[in-house]
Amino acid sequence: MTYCIVVSVKEGLVLTSDSRTNAGIDNVSVHRKMHALSTLPDRTIVLLSAGNLATTQAVIDQLVKDMHERATPNLNSVTSLVEAAEYLGGMSVKKQNRHVNAGQNGFFPAATFILAGQIGHMAHGAYLIYPEGNYITTSIHTPYLQIGEIKYGKPVLDRFLKNDTGLHEAGRCCLISMDSTMRSNVSVGPPVDLLLYRKDSFNLENYYCFAEDDNYLIQLRRQWHEKLKESFATLPPFCSEDKQTLACHEA
Amino acid sequence: MTYCIVVSVKEGLVLTSDSRTNAGIDNVSVHRKMHALSTLPDRTIVLLSAGNLATTQAVIDQLVKDMHERATPNLNSVTSLVEAAEYLGGMSVKKQNRHVNAGQNGFFPAATFILAGQIGHMAHGAYLIYPEGNYITTSIHTPYLQIGEIKYGKPVLDRFLKNDTGLHEAGRCCLISMDSTMRSNVSVGPPVDLLLYRKDSFNLENYYCFAEDDNYLIQLRRQWHEKLKESFATLPPFCSEDKQTLACHEA
Repeated sequence: MTYCIVVSVKEGLVLTSDSRTNAGIDNVSVHRKMHALSTLPDRTIVLLSAGNLATTQAVIDQLVKDMHERATPNLNSVTSLVEAAEYLGGMSVKKQNRHVNAGQNGFFPAATFILAGQIGHMAHGAYLIYPEGNYITTSIHTPYLQIGEIKYGKPVLDRFLKNDTGLHEAGRCCLISMDSTMRSNVSVGPPVDLLLYRKDSFNLENYYCFAEDDNYLIQLRRQWHEKLKESFATLPPFCSEDKQTLACHEA
Repeated sequence: MTYCIVVSVKEGLVLTSDSRTNAGIDNVSVHRKMHALSTLPDRTIVLLSAGNLATTQAVIDQLVKDMHERATPNLNSVTSLVEAAEYLGGMSVKKQNRHVNAGQNGFFPAATFILAGQIGHMAHGAYLIYPEGNYITTSIHTPYLQIGEIKYGKPVLDRFLKNDTGLHEAGRCCLISMDSTMRSNVSVGPPVDLLLYRKDSFNLENYYCFAEDDNYLIQLRRQWHEKLKESFATLPPFCSEDKQTLACHEA
């Protein structure tokens, strides 16, 4: 499976992804799901991908080919992120539709993407592109998008991410969310990619790749676990006086 | 939807359930999902239910009728929890199979149960009974079972529940797990039922029902949130020296 998050806050973007792919539980590999694309200097575009690996690779190959051949449109010709999302959505549907046997014998070519970045003087942002080709973006109230195994790691994002959360803080929040997910679903696994994009910077310099035995990740995981244990130990007990009677189904 | 948990530890059992049911997002009701059954004094049997409400009600009615008519088997005649699980599984399948139109027009009669309790001198325990009628129990390594919307609240159970966790502590852990789930899925909602069963007690005296505006639940939720925020604020930053280069897909 996969777990990817993009956070879009005032200061910029935070992208996080795991690297485990599997074609069946007995066929597990490591593939990066964070794809930076070498576009013109006036734009930064990064994709995160989930779903069928052949589809995601086909889509990325086509994006690169379209840029190289200056096709209309391509990632260098689009004038906004929403135009890029529309273009990517259409391409993803086309790649999926090549398969007439979709849905048979457990074969599903569906793929889901998050496209994040900034183009020219426009605001940075992120779009989640569904397998059907349609897409959504973030809101001030929900400043993040997730794809893949989204549930285990969602509560912590809901608790801590606000529009004015700093990039490093949002990055730690994503790593905690990723850790909860990796604990609960073995098909989500390291290395964990993390990219902080400061708005208007148009660079990919703040990139980190955390292996399973990375000291920082181990420290973060331990400290979070210990702090949670301490917090849990201080929770107030419920009162015996609040006991009620549980009605029985009488035979 | 539904979220129910049973924890089976050395000291006994902890059962937790929400009370929100929905037949479509525009048809939401309150139904208790914790069902105590008035059995003979040598046994305590409590069910938690998820899935189709008509099926769960039909199953519980039949369980009660079978006890009343002293059918073979019934919950008073079974000599172990596993026998009770087998009997319940068969009955659930029968109730579901009455519907020839299952799977059509979005109609699914499937229901899932957890049967928990103690019979005579045997150990207390819990069984999760799938819609197909088969069942599983807990292990020392995973001392809990969940049904319904299980993912949001699972990480906290994995972190804190051990075989030697006390009943009150396990109860607080379940309430935290329930809170995370209610925050993330509006189809899971209060009142929250909580039952602590001390092994060999054969009573249902330690029962609590927490309404949405229950003072204890509000206090628990606030304190947990504040403690998590404090813990999050102390997490170590990642070092700028660990930055790497993110390879680009070149056009």
